[in-house]
Amino acid sequence: MSTDLAPTIDLDALRDRVDTVLAEFLRHPPAGIPSQRDRTGELTHALTDFVLAPGKRIRPLLCILGWHAAGGGDGEESLWQMAASLEVFHAFALIHDDIIDNSPTRRGRPSAHRAFAARHRAGPDADAFGVHAAILLGDLALVCSDALMNAAGLSTRQRQTVLPLLDAMRGEVLLGQHLDLLATGRPTGDVDEAMSIARLKTAKYTIERPLHLGVTLVGAHRDLLALCSAYALPLGEAFQLRDDLLGVFGDPSLTGKPVLDDLRSGKATVLMALATRRATPEQRRTLETLVGRADLGEEDAARVRRILQHTGARDAVESLITERYGRALAALDSDLLAPPIAAALRQIAARAAIRTA
Amino acid sequence: MSTDLAPTIDLDALRDRVDTVLAEFLRHPPAGIPSQRDRTGELTHALTDFVLAPGKRIRPLLCILGWHAAGGGDGEESLWQMAASLEVFHAFALIHDDIIDNSPTRRGRPSAHRAFAARHRAGPDADAFGVHAAILLGDLALVCSDALMNAAGLSTRQRQTVLPLLDAMRGEVLLGQHLDLLATGRPTGDVDEAMSIARLKTAKYTIERPLHLGVTLVGAHRDLLALCSAYALPLGEAFQLRDDLLGVFGDPSLTGKPVLDDLRSGKATVLMALATRRATPEQRRTLETLVGRADLGEEDAARVRRILQHTGARDAVESLITERYGRALAALDSDLLAPPIAAALRQIAARAAIRTA
Repeated sequence: MSTDLAPTIDLDALRDRVDTVLAEFLRHPPAGIPSQRDRTGELTHALTDFVLAPGKRIRPLLCILGWHAAGGGDGEESLWQMAASLEVFHAFALIHDDIIDNSPTRRGRPSAHRAFAARHRAGPDADAFGVHAAILLGDLALVCSDALMNAAGLSTRQRQTVLPLLDAMRGEVLLGQHLDLLATGRPTGDVDEAMSIARLKTAKYTIERPLHLGVTLVGAHRDLLALCSAYALPLGEAFQLRDDLLGVFGDPSLTGKPVLDDLRSGKATVLMALATRRATPEQRRTLETLVGRADLGEEDAARVRRILQHTGARDAVESLITERYGRALAALDSDLLAPPIAAALRQIAARAAIRTA
Repeated sequence: MSTDLAPTIDLDALRDRVDTVLAEFLRHPPAGIPSQRDRTGELTHALTDFVLAPGKRIRPLLCILGWHAAGGGDGEESLWQMAASLEVFHAFALIHDDIIDNSPTRRGRPSAHRAFAARHRAGPDADAFGVHAAILLGDLALVCSDALMNAAGLSTRQRQTVLPLLDAMRGEVLLGQHLDLLATGRPTGDVDEAMSIARLKTAKYTIERPLHLGVTLVGAHRDLLALCSAYALPLGEAFQLRDDLLGVFGDPSLTGKPVLDDLRSGKATVLMALATRRATPEQRRTLETLVGRADLGEEDAARVRRILQHTGARDAVESLITERYGRALAALDSDLLAPPIAAALRQIAARAAIRTA
């Protein structure tokens, strides 16, 4: 364990430092990367707005905690670059995901494609322009996340161990998105499929890989990696299950996301799969008629919510979250983790599983 | 100069070897990257089809020639990985570009988004599905191009000199695409803008950066880099100008691209800018009415072509190509280049400037 670790870890201070690295990078990107001083500056301005909007920064935080858990030490500069890189990669994933989900808002603001469309409303076909500019914006985010990693000054040993994990993380989340896309549209009772998408898109991508990346930056600690997985995978499932509940029952003023999107797109969530499986024939017909309708209104959404409630699906998902949250916390009871790190990971677990936004 | 260089360089043999590296990577991608053996395998199959479709492979070839020009030697394994990485990056750029340009075909086959849409025609909103899957496919290509570079075994020195060039290349092409997107829609007489987009999107991205990357893999050769630029920048402009001509006057059976796309999208080419500038008021009104219309038919396209011809814009572009082609060739008359390499670069110049596809 790092000796300069304070008795408690101030997650907000870590987050602020990540934001400082991000802001600095975006203000002075490396040569060739579009900058705010370019002729239009539009892409970089949009990326800066998106990346620096308030967020949980959960991936950078986990990466930093993994590094501390493994003993920290040398290479702290690389750590901050990598933490920032994970956040910019996440911006990429969100920007493209919002296009695919046709989400109008993100973090309480217009999503990237909507913001571009609004700015070019006077032009021809502003909506298509918005989508196209947002595709490029997401691409730029991915390129920037590489540029941050490329400047991280990794040693040869670190390159050989860290970069394959990073590639795997990226591949997994794309596969998860693709499976998600294939499954979206119509409610089915396929709980396993919904759970396996949650594992790829969230459990591995959001929790396990960032922790592993931080650990691996220091060195290979097989037991610690296993401990991280034992914490990360149930927590990541809990995180996604909470997301699914918030996507239907959440308060848009807190989540920053409209509460009809998941129902309108017919997202293949565990919540919906459980409800479909438990529904009476009549309830099932209602779900099949309403879920996945792009023009679903508030009244019909209320009907769907009642079915999710009456079938017990909502409660069942709460139970799944509680069970997984418990398993994640139990994994932290280990001599391998210094108490301040375990405490910080508990804090993150609470934010992920119990949050309202 | 590399001593094991044959008296003449067989570009087709180099291309075949690049394809072998690409095929091997796609058959056995690193852990975590979607593979053909995944549950759906759909993304990787589509990427394999796209990447291995016949193409010029001009960027890998230039990278390899740059490496030879700088003396080659050690690190040949890295060279092939990097050459392949450039091609996969290009697949990324094309896949997203085809979405943005709404291009139905590429390399004589349906473009990625159209192919996905066709495969899912039975599902709801197949066209949107196709676009969304193709966004993910492009993303996967970009991630794969990173994975190829990450496995290239670069030394610390190489990482420090090569990766910033790679980041710059990526940033430049995205900025070029963005400017292109902003300029597309309505014909203007802005020749400078069209030319500066061509520089970013093509001259630097397609010719200069790949050559520089190959050179830099071996070491910093300031004079050689300058020579490469003197060859690359005019040639790249010629390449784009040829593309613009083929986009309007080309034979779709040779180019693999429909000949109405550029006119329908209102692409801001030097060709169109020159025509707009030289047009009579009546011709200009015709251009403004027709160019950029999504439903432009063959008859109206013929009217536009006649204007491009009668204003002399077409001939002017041919002259620009000839002038730039000549400058590119002149740059090769240097003691810095071994004769076989100069010969290969001349061959590539001819393919770029004089091609019909």
